[in-house]
Amino acid sequence: MSEVPETEPLDKAPLSIREEEDAVYGLNDDTVQQIREYLDQNNVNEIRQQIAELHSADIADLIEHLRPKHRSKLLLIADDLVEADVYSDLDDTVREDLVDEMETAEIAELVNELELDDAIDVLDDLEKDEQQDVLNELPAENRLVIEEGLSYQEDTAGRLMQRDLVAVPEYWDIGQTIDYLREAEGLPKDFYEIFVVDPRHHPIGTLPLDHAMCSRPNVPVSEVMHREQKLIPVGMDQEEVAYLFQQYRLSSAAVVNESGALIGMITVDDVVDVISEEAEEDILRLGGVSEDDLFGSILETARTRFTWLLVNLFTAILASVAISFFDAAMEKVIALAVLMPIVASMGGNAGTQTLTVAVRAIATRELTASNMTVILRKEALVAFINGCIFAILIGLVSWVWFGDADIGWVIALAMVVNMLVAGIAGMVIPITLERHDIDPAIASSVFVTTITDIIGFVAFLGIASAVLL
Amino acid sequence: MSEVPETEPLDKAPLSIREEEDAVYGLNDDTVQQIREYLDQNNVNEIRQQIAELHSADIADLIEHLRPKHRSKLLLIADDLVEADVYSDLDDTVREDLVDEMETAEIAELVNELELDDAIDVLDDLEKDEQQDVLNELPAENRLVIEEGLSYQEDTAGRLMQRDLVAVPEYWDIGQTIDYLREAEGLPKDFYEIFVVDPRHHPIGTLPLDHAMCSRPNVPVSEVMHREQKLIPVGMDQEEVAYLFQQYRLSSAAVVNESGALIGMITVDDVVDVISEEAEEDILRLGGVSEDDLFGSILETARTRFTWLLVNLFTAILASVAISFFDAAMEKVIALAVLMPIVASMGGNAGTQTLTVAVRAIATRELTASNMTVILRKEALVAFINGCIFAILIGLVSWVWFGDADIGWVIALAMVVNMLVAGIAGMVIPITLERHDIDPAIASSVFVTTITDIIGFVAFLGIASAVLL
Repeated sequence: MSEVPETEPLDKAPLSIREEEDAVYGLNDDTVQQIREYLDQNNVNEIRQQIAELHSADIADLIEHLRPKHRSKLLLIADDLVEADVYSDLDDTVREDLVDEMETAEIAELVNELELDDAIDVLDDLEKDEQQDVLNELPAENRLVIEEGLSYQEDTAGRLMQRDLVAVPEYWDIGQTIDYLREAEGLPKDFYEIFVVDPRHHPIGTLPLDHAMCSRPNVPVSEVMHREQKLIPVGMDQEEVAYLFQQYRLSSAAVVNESGALIGMITVDDVVDVISEEAEEDILRLGGVSEDDLFGSILETARTRFTWLLVNLFTAILASVAISFFDAAMEKVIALAVLMPIVASMGGNAGTQTLTVAVRAIATRELTASNMTVILRKEALVAFINGCIFAILIGLVSWVWFGDADIGWVIALAMVVNMLVAGIAGMVIPITLERHDIDPAIASSVFVTTITDIIGFVAFLGIASAVLL
Repeated sequence: MSEVPETEPLDKAPLSIREEEDAVYGLNDDTVQQIREYLDQNNVNEIRQQIAELHSADIADLIEHLRPKHRSKLLLIADDLVEADVYSDLDDTVREDLVDEMETAEIAELVNELELDDAIDVLDDLEKDEQQDVLNELPAENRLVIEEGLSYQEDTAGRLMQRDLVAVPEYWDIGQTIDYLREAEGLPKDFYEIFVVDPRHHPIGTLPLDHAMCSRPNVPVSEVMHREQKLIPVGMDQEEVAYLFQQYRLSSAAVVNESGALIGMITVDDVVDVISEEAEEDILRLGGVSEDDLFGSILETARTRFTWLLVNLFTAILASVAISFFDAAMEKVIALAVLMPIVASMGGNAGTQTLTVAVRAIATRELTASNMTVILRKEALVAFINGCIFAILIGLVSWVWFGDADIGWVIALAMVVNMLVAGIAGMVIPITLERHDIDPAIASSVFVTTITDIIGFVAFLGIASAVLL
């Protein structure tokens, strides 16, 4: 971090803070626009001055907002002002694009400056040969640590942890600990806890810095340390790590290897990113998007969206096949063709409501095997109640519209059936997928809407065929 | 926190960690089942023993998983073991239910023990009279702080912050600071930074505890402190606060009043909850659910889902009205009625994909006015490319199915039109809503699917009427 005073001048505009909340922090659209103009004008001085004033996280946002050509130009002009930190804040797609344009030596330099988890991210995106080339250019010590990091599976604690940490023996006192810290080199950049270890380097407790600072020098570490701690096995999934930090409000936690020895630590700021990522993944998957493709190329984006649409085409054709069995009924009573989409659409929406709640509750572990039955019964009842209300509404509308009470009865009955099915399917399908280790966020939606479409059409047209013909 | 050793016995099962990842931490379904049985058997001793072994966050989960009757019974049996912390971890709906059953004096006792932000949450749920009754029972000092907290708007920094913090003058040295901490009373429970203030109590920098601990006693605070800091106005929206913490990787930040004086601090653990809440809100709203209703009563849940379904009924009827203009065409060529839902369904899915990416990108500020045009053009092209591919697929399927090349051409053309519309609407609608200060997560979906439904039906049936009749 730079030592330039950057405290925001709040005093200057004490009354306008509330109104301008959105504009107080973060990258400003006007700044982006201006830098674009400077780039077009090749105004090197102004560009360098603007970049120098921005926080690394905001420079990352700026780069994301520029077109590829402007990005390259910016880096050419202000490469020395764009610190390694900027790369750790960049969107994956954009970072990959930038790294692709770099020479091996440049990548090695970048990797060398990045924090371990970010360095591994950059290397992980490279082809195997290029990865090896970059590793060969790194100083031996750093290379070993990074190679070990790469050996852990993606999205596990091993990838998230940093190796630098502070560990002290239980028999030290606070004074010794503070003296050690004042002399020590290679301390982590930010840390909130000191780990207390036994002679085998197994963690036996933690000493939060605030506790340490508030204790007198002669107090033994063993007296103020917390013995209750949550250890993280190095292979633990990052989603599980995020759960642990949230559930027990941790600021940092020790990572242990298979024999239980302390090998790293994870701090809450790394976990904040994981929580966002995991929530983002659920949102996108529920919307039928497999990955964040905002900054992806057109062809790449079209490709990632294609699979889901193909599945949907198949299910839509399936629904049409179901409809085709009732073509005779529709030919006789064309009102059926007109009203047909309503029941399916209402079922789809009711099912989506339930499955959204279910998917989220599974992710946050509020919905588990032990309360499944109660919640399922509740959802079925909710669906039935709303089904009845909407049956009355649509029944009356259809009756008035087509002047035929029978059509009203038919659509009302189909509505109750389909909304009940929607409520049950919206809960049962995500639970079943989860049990079979399939991410409910990615697959629930297609199953539920296929069911509500087909049941919607078949119930309505089927009941109509029986009653009206 | 208890002083009982609770380090997990990893050594006992070093090889099974990976397989049992899911079961290592958090509440176990078997435990819930067992406690249910004990509750039915009135086995007070076993229940108390089990509860005593659980972390407060896990007790909260346990209570959420029980039925209302079991909940009351559990609290009757183990009230003294259920600490105030449990209430801060409870789901809002469940906590409200439990607090509703308490006497005023009990609520006052709970509020008194809770941390400020949680105490305010509990009081905020109460009726105005009851709130006043509880406030009257609180010790004067605590009452004043809570009343001030209540005066800040919900979901703002004022509600999130805690009042306890450590602030020191710039001219102190590290030794003085440590001495002060060792003597001070009323320190915050957890803190990561000391704030450095000027004589008017305006923040001028921060001193991270790790920096303080690693510095020698005679070093002046002004030499090691960070002058670059992000100040949070007390009225700032919590979403903005979360953005700030994520963007600049903060561990804590100073909250200032309108004249710029330091009045509180927000720590990253409070922000972790906000990030989850805000992401959860987006997920639920995109799914047509206005609030997390997993633990809500049946009628309450049916009511919250009703509005969205009513809107959907209206748009579904609108689509049917559009279809009804083409009843003559469908009577002549019944294949039109059979194929009709496919184009609308594909458009709905393509539109949902785009709007999901857009809503998320707006929330994370990756999509702003400055890159809107580029992204919109990209989405339109993506939609066009996939539209063409799916047009060919469905055109061939329809041709083969109905043995009529014209039907194939008609549906193919309609598909391109509707998918292009879907891609554009999926991007333009969330952006437009955001500009008009309407949450794009809550309203985009209904607008986009209404458009894709109606355009889907009208394009297909309209082109068919022109070509086939």
